Amino acid sequence: MKSMAVKKGSGKNKRTKYVYFFGHGKAEGNAAMKNLLGGKGANLAEMTNLGIPVPPGFTITTETCDSFYKSGKKWPDGLEAQIKDNLAKLEQAMGAQFGSRDNPLLVSVRSGAAASMPGMMDTVLNLGLTSEVVQGLIIKTENERFAWDAYRRFIQMFGDVVMGVERDHFEQILDKKKEQVGVKYDSELCANDLKDVVRQYKKVYQDVTGEEFPQDPYQQLTKTINAVFGSWNNPRAIRYRQLNEIRGLLGTAVNVQAMVFGNMGDSSGTGVCFTRNPSTGENKFYGEFLVNAQGEDVVAGIRTPQPLDGMAKQWPDIYKQLCAIRTKLEKHYRDMQDIEFTIQEGKLFILQTRNGKRTAQAAVRIAVELVKEGFLKQGEALLRIDPKQLDQLLHPTFDPKQPKTVLSKGLPASPGAATGKVVFNAEDAEAWAAKGEPVILVRIETSPEDIGGMNAAKGILTARGGMTSHAAVVARGMGKCCVAGVSNLQIDYASKEFRTGDVTVKQGDFISLDGSLGQVYQGKLNTMDAELSGDFGKLMKWADQTRKLKVRTNGDTPVDAQVARKFGAEGIGLCRTEHMFFEGDRIIAVREMILSDNKEGREKALAKLLPMQRGDFEGIFKAMDGLPVTIRLLDPPLHEFLPQEEANQREMAQVMNVPFEKIRQKVESLHEFNPMLGHRGCRLGVSYPEISQMQARAIIEAACNVKKRGVKVFPEIMIPLVGMKKELDILAEQIVQVANQVFEEKKMKLPYMIGTMIEVPRAALTADRIAETAQFFSFGTNDLTQMGLGFSRDDSGSFLGTYVEQGIFEKDPFQSLDQEGVGALIRLGIQKGRSTRPDLKVGICGEHGGDPASIEFCHRVGMNYVSCSPYRVPIARLAAAQAVLKEKKK
Amino acid sequence: MKSMAVKKGSGKNKRTKYVYFFGHGKAEGNAAMKNLLGGKGANLAEMTNLGIPVPPGFTITTETCDSFYKSGKKWPDGLEAQIKDNLAKLEQAMGAQFGSRDNPLLVSVRSGAAASMPGMMDTVLNLGLTSEVVQGLIIKTENERFAWDAYRRFIQMFGDVVMGVERDHFEQILDKKKEQVGVKYDSELCANDLKDVVRQYKKVYQDVTGEEFPQDPYQQLTKTINAVFGSWNNPRAIRYRQLNEIRGLLGTAVNVQAMVFGNMGDSSGTGVCFTRNPSTGENKFYGEFLVNAQGEDVVAGIRTPQPLDGMAKQWPDIYKQLCAIRTKLEKHYRDMQDIEFTIQEGKLFILQTRNGKRTAQAAVRIAVELVKEGFLKQGEALLRIDPKQLDQLLHPTFDPKQPKTVLSKGLPASPGAATGKVVFNAEDAEAWAAKGEPVILVRIETSPEDIGGMNAAKGILTARGGMTSHAAVVARGMGKCCVAGVSNLQIDYASKEFRTGDVTVKQGDFISLDGSLGQVYQGKLNTMDAELSGDFGKLMKWADQTRKLKVRTNGDTPVDAQVARKFGAEGIGLCRTEHMFFEGDRIIAVREMILSDNKEGREKALAKLLPMQRGDFEGIFKAMDGLPVTIRLLDPPLHEFLPQEEANQREMAQVMNVPFEKIRQKVESLHEFNPMLGHRGCRLGVSYPEISQMQARAIIEAACNVKKRGVKVFPEIMIPLVGMKKELDILAEQIVQVANQVFEEKKMKLPYMIGTMIEVPRAALTADRIAETAQFFSFGTNDLTQMGLGFSRDDSGSFLGTYVEQGIFEKDPFQSLDQEGVGALIRLGIQKGRSTRPDLKVGICGEHGGDPASIEFCHRVGMNYVSCSPYRVPIARLAAAQAVLKEKKK
Repeated sequence: MKSMAVKKGSGKNKRTKYVYFFGHGKAEGNAAMKNLLGGKGANLAEMTNLGIPVPPGFTITTETCDSFYKSGKKWPDGLEAQIKDNLAKLEQAMGAQFGSRDNPLLVSVRSGAAASMPGMMDTVLNLGLTSEVVQGLIIKTENERFAWDAYRRFIQMFGDVVMGVERDHFEQILDKKKEQVGVKYDSELCANDLKDVVRQYKKVYQDVTGEEFPQDPYQQLTKTINAVFGSWNNPRAIRYRQLNEIRGLLGTAVNVQAMVFGNMGDSSGTGVCFTRNPSTGENKFYGEFLVNAQGEDVVAGIRTPQPLDGMAKQWPDIYKQLCAIRTKLEKHYRDMQDIEFTIQEGKLFILQTRNGKRTAQAAVRIAVELVKEGFLKQGEALLRIDPKQLDQLLHPTFDPKQPKTVLSKGLPASPGAATGKVVFNAEDAEAWAAKGEPVILVRIETSPEDIGGMNAAKGILTARGGMTSHAAVVARGMGKCCVAGVSNLQIDYASKEFRTGDVTVKQGDFISLDGSLGQVYQGKLNTMDAELSGDFGKLMKWADQTRKLKVRTNGDTPVDAQVARKFGAEGIGLCRTEHMFFEGDRIIAVREMILSDNKEGREKALAKLLPMQRGDFEGIFKAMDGLPVTIRLLDPPLHEFLPQEEANQREMAQVMNVPFEKIRQKVESLHEFNPMLGHRGCRLGVSYPEISQMQARAIIEAACNVKKRGVKVFPEIMIPLVGMKKELDILAEQIVQVANQVFEEKKMKLPYMIGTMIEVPRAALTADRIAETAQFFSFGTNDLTQMGLGFSRDDSGSFLGTYVEQGIFEKDPFQSLDQEGVGALIRLGIQKGRSTRPDLKVGICGEHGGDPASIEFCHRVGMNYVSCSPYRVPIARLAAAQAVLKEKKK
Repeated sequence: MKSMAVKKGSGKNKRTKYVYFFGHGKAEGNAAMKNLLGGKGANLAEMTNLGIPVPPGFTITTETCDSFYKSGKKWPDGLEAQIKDNLAKLEQAMGAQFGSRDNPLLVSVRSGAAASMPGMMDTVLNLGLTSEVVQGLIIKTENERFAWDAYRRFIQMFGDVVMGVERDHFEQILDKKKEQVGVKYDSELCANDLKDVVRQYKKVYQDVTGEEFPQDPYQQLTKTINAVFGSWNNPRAIRYRQLNEIRGLLGTAVNVQAMVFGNMGDSSGTGVCFTRNPSTGENKFYGEFLVNAQGEDVVAGIRTPQPLDGMAKQWPDIYKQLCAIRTKLEKHYRDMQDIEFTIQEGKLFILQTRNGKRTAQAAVRIAVELVKEGFLKQGEALLRIDPKQLDQLLHPTFDPKQPKTVLSKGLPASPGAATGKVVFNAEDAEAWAAKGEPVILVRIETSPEDIGGMNAAKGILTARGGMTSHAAVVARGMGKCCVAGVSNLQIDYASKEFRTGDVTVKQGDFISLDGSLGQVYQGKLNTMDAELSGDFGKLMKWADQTRKLKVRTNGDTPVDAQVARKFGAEGIGLCRTEHMFFEGDRIIAVREMILSDNKEGREKALAKLLPMQRGDFEGIFKAMDGLPVTIRLLDPPLHEFLPQEEANQREMAQVMNVPFEKIRQKVESLHEFNPMLGHRGCRLGVSYPEISQMQARAIIEAACNVKKRGVKVFPEIMIPLVGMKKELDILAEQIVQVANQVFEEKKMKLPYMIGTMIEVPRAALTADRIAETAQFFSFGTNDLTQMGLGFSRDDSGSFLGTYVEQGIFEKDPFQSLDQEGVGALIRLGIQKGRSTRPDLKVGICGEHGGDPASIEFCHRVGMNYVSCSPYRVPIARLAAAQAVLKEKKK
């Protein structure tokens, strides 16, 4: 901020280069200048330098956008002159004049930040047309219909995206005209029809904006450039950046480029292609095109395009040319490319290339195959995969054996399986999801406004649009299941229902989507575990060879343990014993214990729990044969085991045959104002040693029992919520006594460890003392975050949104570790802990253990392992490998 | 522990000196050996060396007690031999034989730790008597009655304190005998009566203990020594150490000393004296004595003794001798002494000297006068006062103008005024006090079992006992008001009432005590502020000259501010604005604000609050003219301002004319699971900027208004619960904007500061960043303790007791700062804060700001000030001075 101010003050701005030209084989920029020129601009420059046919143009830098905001939405000194210079260069390159009637130059204006951002203003085409220039275009193209169509498109786009005239105003005029003339498609309107449409468009433009449609092309351009800058901070764009954690960018660049027309007749067209299949990753050219259309017709999904194969037959030469460019670009960028192209009267132009969005499955396959093909090294391939995306691969698919009723079929736009209740708009999707309902968002087509709802939904179903439609692209990026372009879907937003065939599905009804097959099923379907492909296995092997962190799982049952082991878990990092307390009859014994007024009563009730807990542990030890299992002693406050509602208390009284009043009183006496900071964790074991003694006995007996049956067992007993060394000492002594007793009874021994959660700030601050007793530390970052930040996770929802919005937090600190604050406690805890016990084993078992950014932090601070939920184990394996690779890069 | 083990293993024990002899002008120990010999033993040695007539004896060291516990309650090797050696020495010194019938030596056995501990076993007298030895004693003393009385006392004391035979068993026998014989006092029983009592005592001893009363004096001695060791860890002693924060001692010493008898007739007696008046501090010899009595008769308060003046007349020579000793000892110890003496047939013996317990008033006067008299330097005098004790001086006395009904009069045993509900036992006192009831504990006499109840009571009233009775001594130590020896008080424990004159006072009735006058009043009386004496002012001046920490006060009203200023507060360190929100009509405007669904509604309600808040601040600024005032913005969660009960919600609905349902819903929507960690503090200002803006405006407008009237005003605006720098930035920006606006409106300016509470651990951990914005830090150690330790203050009561008992905490961390854990955060916060802002002003405003140990910590870590409640300001001033003096010592 300061450096800009200095520049301004000292008049240095005139020397700042705001605009970069590209055209005819030479560009001032290149692909490495993404931060300055945006992704689109950098790649246009790069392609120009590569000799790929790109229409010439220029890019206004992202710094300009930053400067625009910082000076109160004004252009910096020198920008106007540079734009005019480059416009002149462009006129020279194209041999045409901007705003000229005789030989008009039309341009497109596109936004383009360093990261792809569907939330921003995208494109204004045909800029430069005025009522006078359109006459020149008619003469130049000898195509009156085309010229009027271009003009009416321009007015509509400019009106919509630059001036905020609702699209509906224009659509209504167009629909009415088609009705009047008696045709179905826009393309059936003739030049005169369109001329009249232009007249009506100008009128509605003036009615809404209060000013005439601008007849000065340069004014059109400046307004559009300002609109692009302005779109950087529109709510949609901000929301998109939040959702996608895009931060630290200066702003958007603006690309001004000579127009080429895909709508100049049947030898023209436009399309989008991927150098490999973005759904499966298969190394096969993949794309769609539309004859006689402009780019937005494809992307918006308004007409359903043809697959690229059709082009090979229709325009074999152009197809060959395109294939050559495919090869060139992929080789150059060493990654799968997403390319936009236009054919103007038989001539191919490339309008954009970028690394293509892809499914996780495709990402894995492409990365592995690029290594096989010699384009990438293993480490590079590992860094190519967003660990979070792997989630897609790991989640269940529908059980193929169950009967299914197919409602309809569409395009398999984003793989995966989803089942949920139908909703018809983004707001409902967000609201229902917030209440915990699984929802499927059903839309005719989606637009950037729907991002929030798409994110909240389990899956997305659209009636229109292709594989590269907004819905499909965004869903793949999100890893959401999506079925797009289901043409026989009649959606009625007003009555909140859709029909397909003779079935009517109402809001709130369950449907299921198979995004890999494009199937839509009636009702709720059961899912099953994903099959992991060979490529995935290969990638994981590379990750395992690279990473230093071990990856364990949080799991409370043998089933959890088995799933996690399949995903590569190297032990259990957190087995929560309290979950076992709720199952079946156990809760009765637990409640008996709580209701007891004395130790004897508690011990009697605990004796009933002992064999059950022992059985649980035996199952888990067996499932984890050969691997360590960390078992945490009872953690939650006791009131969590009692019903809070009177009706349930009365029921409990009846079942247990105790007076209701006794239960009511117990609940009352256990009530806490801040249970998070109450009588829980090791505090229970200090107050009621018999509880931890029972648990210790169950663990050690189970370990002995399975060891006798040949299982290799490594129990690690973890004491929660320790703040003071003495707490740990007291519980550790209880455990050692019980263990020795069991060993004596069973006439055998086995190694076990006693450690602690570090989840109270004081524990981290005094970790040197705690490590005198603790043989291992496991950072409980959920609670450490709650206490370190003073944020109750249950309550912070009411303000956390505001906090992320206002930039107080970059991310929800319960999802991604607050590395500065909570991270400081972790660093301190590890350093102090190892100062007294150099071989201290350190891990993390909060939910952050499955978050890639947090895992990288765990690696950096020297932890031994992370522990996360079973489905996140592969994510953690990859993230741990990436942490090593990123460290090496530095 | 290890060193002892080594000693044992290597047989070095035999060389360890366990026993120290004293007698006839020469002692092996001295006063400096208090830790080894206990206070009593060290002083007996010292006095012996000083040539003061002390009966000879020997002291078994505290290390022996430690060793006793560590080896499973066994005597260390060598102890027995050393005891026997010293016993022989003692026999030689006394010219008598232990256990001899012909020339018996009797001894007393007394416990004596390094700190005075009424909770322990105190004394067994006349040890060495057996059925045979008693005969020798008769011959030797030619006093049969005395001998039998001595024997029956010994059996009773040995039975009670060594063997645990309830005193009641013995008392009943004695009472029955007196009844039988028809006399009132023990002293009226004749030799034969007592002989029969001895017979009956022996029988009951055998019935209860299952063994004969030991007839081997050496066995009596070993059993008694073991009982003294054992009493070190009896529950009373443990509780006493907890209450008095006595820690780090090895154990108790045991003093075995030749008996001298104050009960050998009318030329014998026993007494206790203080070298100065322990209530007022007046430099006047002060004490009490009983003719023909043993020491316990005075201390236990069973008979009411005569004042010392009487002795000057009765035994002028002895009195003169005692006065000489008084001067010698005080000069030697340079402090007021509490001396126990016995006169055996005209010969004076000193049995004990120690620094005397005293009231705060006396402590101040004595310290100041000792400086005047040239015995002490100012710094030494400052260190002589326990800052906590000053509390006594600062609390209110009864308003003399109100009508009072005197119920009775007793001894002014401990000064101060107390009003409360009558209870008759310690358990009730503790239970009622726990419920927040003010109670007066009324007892016939108190005993060490009553400590807990005395601590819980506002005041103590006893029917028996003098100024040195248990009740009086303990109450003075505690700084509790006590009226003792109210002889016309008939207490009926069974019906829980007392009668005095014709008034009956029942449990739960209010009475009031004036401990300075010894008055007992009927009903509840109003109190008024204490007058501070000139000595106090002098001491405070010395403290102010010494200390480096500034002392501010926590105060929310002009009245608080005035009181604190009178006590020497140098500013307000914490003014809680929310307290103002509850007053009168304001709560309605506050509730209007909370019920508003939008900013406009909130602003409207806040506009009503603005003039009231401004008025508050004007009052406080005026009261603090010339001194800084730190005002904290709204801190508690909003739900605290709404009624939680349905009935109150309905009432509120009526008053405010809004539907009940709206209030119910609002309360529900504001409900939090962990409000401590919820939507409060600066989080409110982030969510509702209009609240902090109103408060900032009220502060700045008030400051401008009073400045116009000539008041010197230094507002410091404090933002609570900051965890992230950005939170502070957002609120600071709001405040600066408002302030500039007000300055513009008022056409004036004034300096103000913006700072923050450091109460969230994250704030301390990232204090370097926060100090970039914050101009001052105030450590909010209440919340910092809650979050740093994960302890909800409201809930931790259920386990904090167990925690202190088990030694997990030394003290309640909400009363005295957890210096290791929370202290680490404070150190870190200060160091980091000053790393980016070297002149950062740092203070503390939690309740720890009035705790002497915590204040010493604040000094050590380099804070600029502490802030505490008004009545604690002088305590803080003294503690801050002591911190400097203690630092210098090191």
